[in-house]
Formats: sequence, C-alpha cells, structure tokens
Amino acid sequence: MNYQTLLSDRTAQMGASAIREILKVVAQPGMVSLAGGIPSPQSFPLDLIQKLCVTVIEKYGAAALQYGPTEGFSPLRQVLAKHLGTLGMKAEPKDVLVSSGSQGVLDALGKVLISKGDQIAVETPTYLGALQAFDPYQPCYVSVETDDDGIIPEALERKLKTGRIKFVYLVPTFQNPTGRSLSIERRHETAAIIKKYEALLVEDDPYSTLRYHGQQLPTLKSLAPDNVVYIGTFSKIFAPGLRVGFCLAPTAIGHWLTIVKQGVDLHTSTLSQALAAEYLAGGYLEKHLPSIINLYRPRQAAMLSALENHFANDFHFSRPQGGMFIWVEGPPGFDAKKAYQKAIQQKVAFVPGCYFYADPGAGLNTMRLNFSMNDPATIEKAVTTLADVVMF
Amino acid sequence: MNYQTLLSDRTAQMGASAIREILKVVAQPGMVSLAGGIPSPQSFPLDLIQKLCVTVIEKYGAAALQYGPTEGFSPLRQVLAKHLGTLGMKAEPKDVLVSSGSQGVLDALGKVLISKGDQIAVETPTYLGALQAFDPYQPCYVSVETDDDGIIPEALERKLKTGRIKFVYLVPTFQNPTGRSLSIERRHETAAIIKKYEALLVEDDPYSTLRYHGQQLPTLKSLAPDNVVYIGTFSKIFAPGLRVGFCLAPTAIGHWLTIVKQGVDLHTSTLSQALAAEYLAGGYLEKHLPSIINLYRPRQAAMLSALENHFANDFHFSRPQGGMFIWVEGPPGFDAKKAYQKAIQQKVAFVPGCYFYADPGAGLNTMRLNFSMNDPATIEKAVTTLADVVMF
Repeated sequence: MNYQTLLSDRTAQMGASAIREILKVVAQPGMVSLAGGIPSPQSFPLDLIQKLCVTVIEKYGAAALQYGPTEGFSPLRQVLAKHLGTLGMKAEPKDVLVSSGSQGVLDALGKVLISKGDQIAVETPTYLGALQAFDPYQPCYVSVETDDDGIIPEALERKLKTGRIKFVYLVPTFQNPTGRSLSIERRHETAAIIKKYEALLVEDDPYSTLRYHGQQLPTLKSLAPDNVVYIGTFSKIFAPGLRVGFCLAPTAIGHWLTIVKQGVDLHTSTLSQALAAEYLAGGYLEKHLPSIINLYRPRQAAMLSALENHFANDFHFSRPQGGMFIWVEGPPGFDAKKAYQKAIQQKVAFVPGCYFYADPGAGLNTMRLNFSMNDPATIEKAVTTLADVVMF
Repeated sequence: MNYQTLLSDRTAQMGASAIREILKVVAQPGMVSLAGGIPSPQSFPLDLIQKLCVTVIEKYGAAALQYGPTEGFSPLRQVLAKHLGTLGMKAEPKDVLVSSGSQGVLDALGKVLISKGDQIAVETPTYLGALQAFDPYQPCYVSVETDDDGIIPEALERKLKTGRIKFVYLVPTFQNPTGRSLSIERRHETAAIIKKYEALLVEDDPYSTLRYHGQQLPTLKSLAPDNVVYIGTFSKIFAPGLRVGFCLAPTAIGHWLTIVKQGVDLHTSTLSQALAAEYLAGGYLEKHLPSIINLYRPRQAAMLSALENHFANDFHFSRPQGGMFIWVEGPPGFDAKKAYQKAIQQKVAFVPGCYFYADPGAGLNTMRLNFSMNDPATIEKAVTTLADVVMF
C-alpha cells in the first residue's frame, strides 16, 4: 500500500525534529548531557505523590477516575484560581482551563487561532515546542529581535504596526532556550504596546517559580489581562509525567480552547488533576519548592562559574536568576554544529542553538546548555571539556 | 478587544455540541439519564488502582513521573503487543502507540491525513467524538449505508470505487450510538474490499471486550493488517479518567502519528500508562473484567425486555450482545427531538439520534439509549416512562 499519498498537505511539510535525533545520541552510555530540557528526577516528591495517590482516591473516590469536564477538574480549577491570585493575576475558577501539559494549550491555541499563512510574532530564538505545536496549522513566523533583557519593545511595535500579527508568543521569564528574562521596564512597555495595538499575546511561563536569586517579576497577564493568554504547568514544580498544565485566557478565547480540546483528548487525566489539586491545596508546593531550588541553585552556579573560568572572552553567555538553561554565543564564525560533533566525541552533549530559530541560518554560533540534570562537579567537568572543544 | 477577528477559518466553522447541552440538562437533580455514554463508576476497581499507584511508584520510581517517549511507556507497549496478540492481531511493541484516550488517535489521524475537503467515509449514524476530532481539519463526510448487521459492504465498495475516499472510519463492534456489530461475513467482505481498493480503514474498538453473550468476532485489523489502523482504549475496562488509549497502525502512518502527537501533548501521562501496564501485566484485567460484565449484563437485559414489553411494534430496536447502547428507530414521522422535550419533563433523558449523523436532517426518528449508568429496576421504570412519552 502507498501510505505516502494519504498524507495531508500539512503533514507533507513536517520534518523529523533534529533535537529528537540529538536526544537519541545523548542516551548513549557514558555521555554527559547538557542537551536535555527536563527536570531532575531528584526534584520529584516521590513519597508525597505515593501518599497523595492514596489520599485522592479516598477523598474523591470514583470521581478521580471517571470522565470529567473538558475545562478541568473543579477542585483543581478552584485552587489554581487562588494560586494565580497570589502571582498577581485576577482569576475566577471558571476562567482557568486545565490542559495536558502546557503543550496542550499551545496546540489548542494553534487550532483556534491560526489560519494557513497567518503571522505569529516570536522571539529570536524561541521555544521549539511552541513551533512544533503551531507548525501543523501552517503559520508564517515573524521574528522579533531580542537582547539580554528579552524582547525589544520597539522591535515588537514595528511588527504590530503592520496590523498583520495574529498573536505574539513569548516565554518572558528564564526563557527556553536562552534563560533570559524580560526586564521589569520592558514588561511595562510590552504591556502598553499590546494594549495600544489591541494585540493578543501568549505568555508561556513554565520556569518563573524556579527562581534562585532576585525578585519575582510581574507577569504580562497581570499588566494587560485582556490581551494575554497566560500558560502555566506543574511539570517543573511537581512532576512532568503527570502532564498537567493550565491557562488563564480571555473568556471568548477560552470558550474555543475548550471546544477544540474536547476533540483532541476529551479532558486531561483526572487522576493527574486530582494529584495536582491536592499538591496545591494541601500547601505541599510551598513545602517542597525550596528543595527543588536548593537542588538547582548550585548546579547553575557551577555552570556559570565554569563558563566564566574556562571559556574565552569572545564567548558571551546569559546569567539568568533561575530556570534550567544558559545560552552561549560564540564569536562570529564559530560553528556550534561542528562543535557539537566534536563534543560528543568527548562524551559531552549540548544542543546547537540554531534549532531554536524560526529563521533557517540564524544562530549558527549559539549553544543551549542545560544545568538541571547533573550535579555541580559533573557540570564543572563537562563545561571544561566543552571549553577545550570550542576553542581547540 | 475584538477576539472574534482572531479566530482561524476552521474555528469559525465549529459549533457548540448539542450533546454537551443535553448533558447539562441531564445533570439536573432527579433526572434519570439514559443519555450518557460513560461507564458506571461501580465498574472501576478503586481499591486495586489505589494499590497499583503504590506499586508503580515503588517499581518504576521517578520514571513513572518523568517525561517519557511520545510513542508511549515502554512496559505498556510491550504488554499491549502481547494483549493485541491474544485478540488475533500481530503486534510488535514498536508498532503499538499509546495515546491520550482513543480520542488522541482520532485527532492525530485527522491531522496527519485530512487536507481540507478530503472525503472520509463513515457509517450512518456514526460516533460523534470522531466527527469532533476530524472536523477542525475540514473534511467532507461520505455516509455509507448500514443496517442491523453494520455497514453494507456493497455500499462501501460503491464509495471506494470513486477513488476519492481518504479513509474509512468504523466502530465495527457494539457501535456507539447503535450498539450494532458488523457480522462475521461482512467483516470478511469488508476486509476483502479495502484490500482490493488499497484503502485505509480506521477501526475504533472501545467496546468489544464488553461482551455479554455470543462469540468474539475477529477484528478488521486481523483480517487486513496493512490496511487498518486499530484503536483501543482502557476507558471501558479500567478507568476512563486515566485517559489511556492506544493504536496499532502501519509503520508509515505511526511515524507521522508520533510526530504530530509530540506537538499536541508531548506524551500521555506516564503515571496513567504505568497503571495500565501493571493492570494488564499483573493479570488484573482477566480478574476484574467478569465483574464489569456481570454489572452490565442485567442492565442491558432489563432495557431490552422493557423495550420489548412497553414499546409499540412500529418501534424497532437493536439487540446487541454487548457494549453500552441500544438504538431505537421510531416509525416514519416520529420526532425524537420532540419526544426528548417531553421526556425531560418526566425526568427521563436520552439523546435524539439525529445528532449522530454527519448529514443534517437524517435520523430524526431515532434515539440512543444508554444502559451502563442505571440499575435494572431504574432502567425498567425509565423505559416505561419513555414508552408513554413516545406513543402518547
């Protein structure tokens, strides 16, 4: 049978992910991986989750295992509304929608909003998972310039002035892949600009809770509530395998997100939602979060100091106050893909930064380094190896 | 802000589901609902699931809570391959893909296969959730005639002869909404036809395990392996809230299903998958299934005998050997929507059958009755009330 002729026109345009291929290499024995983008398994509250499983089945009985509303498990929506309130966002439980990871919101937004050829404004570089969610709906990406303080508001305004941007997609805090955060001044400027142009902005915020230094920044949602879809997740503060994300969207958008989600998975795992509800409502996040932060803070410090000590001065790197990534930019002409090939010979893996750009050919001199998965000593050693490789 | 102008062209074509509205009415206190389509909470092995939660966290540790491969949790794929083998389907673990409910496969198939305007052949009536999954990809539906033995092979062949059918979608066993099963002879004929025309068929099989009488029928997948995507689920034999479904697809199709699933939810809840793996591998399905069957068999018998005893002879109804539904066809001119309005005054709810047809205006004289959610005495009483309402 010829299956190829059965594919849709959108499928014909999709390719295998280069990062998936890299992650297969990384799984080889003996490889030290700075390539991943996942939380340390040491950060999961295993005993607590085991206990909460018993609790939620006692507390909710069959309701924890039955079909549920597409919008989400009611006790979770209630406690999330409160939680979002503590982060400065006004939320009614009815406006909080639960999703199968934050990826589920990205897919649903793509389906609801993107007609073929629509323009989506994204940071350069941007989160690859968002591009994978949006790609099947066949948008065009419009790259907006960024620097160490995140997206440049004037550059964003120039794009919005065209009147052709369907929405703006940002990870404003401890971004994946750069680790960068939008500065407080720029948050206010960005909020003012999207209000001025009546633009919609998607604020993807998986990392802001993982703050190791400095002060919490206001979310864009809190500064421009009508213009922002805020996306959060339990993946970095509880357990990613449960696949629980959520969003706070303007009601008119949330209505359609719910309808399309119903067609995609009916609803998110009720058991996972009940566990997340108990985790928040029982005050366990507050109790457990310090141990996650204490796990990652020295790992980040080790990576920053190794970069400082071993990398040449013409390599520039981000100095985030949280998250899971550091971004390295080599001098012009530095070829990160070649460096990757050499590095894996030395059993150290990372992701060449070019894969995070919507524009082909951009970011060839950049690297994404993850510090969540290895202890400080291993990180120090891996970065030292990497320094030899990149400067040979 | 004007959110309406932001919607994609596909969203503009979607409507709120009439059945969602019905299910809201049904939730009113005192209503006896024959409208639902969900398993009885009494069928869930609550104590076992509580126990298995503890087991899987002990057995798999952090791996039960970490990000996992899009294709599925390896121990689950292995035991599913064996399980499919016992149902007569040759399956390697690498060909078994786990999904977020069977709905997840339907959405992914739509995304991979359907270009705008593509023709999909469906039974009349058909499963509404499939239409909801496919609709956003903007297909045209081609309705194929059915009778009490399921789809009519000659009618299917006439449609395939056009060479314009992208795929055929069927629920061949204890179909939702009709409860009908494709007869053994027609299974062989259908398999021969799809092979002859090199057509792809999607076999959605959530109910075949819920058999109360008679002999197991071979799956279409077992009769035409290269031409069929087989979809199964744990929703009716374990717990639907876990959202674990699976499919066995030709490798070339499975490749693309995996890529699009990665963009939709990365992967299905690892904890849910680990629970499903333990349920199958530990032999708990065999132990628990008889109690589900013993719960539903008398409910179905009560509904069939009440229909026999109280409904007039010009009402025709299906007599399935399993599943969760019975289909009632009134005489020409019988208006099931009007009957629904009268029935809810009498505190009995059902779903008018017209909602399960892809063609507007079809099936106005039909009703779907569910028997999984009420005990035999309640069913007997509700059907008696319904008989008064429909014949007034």
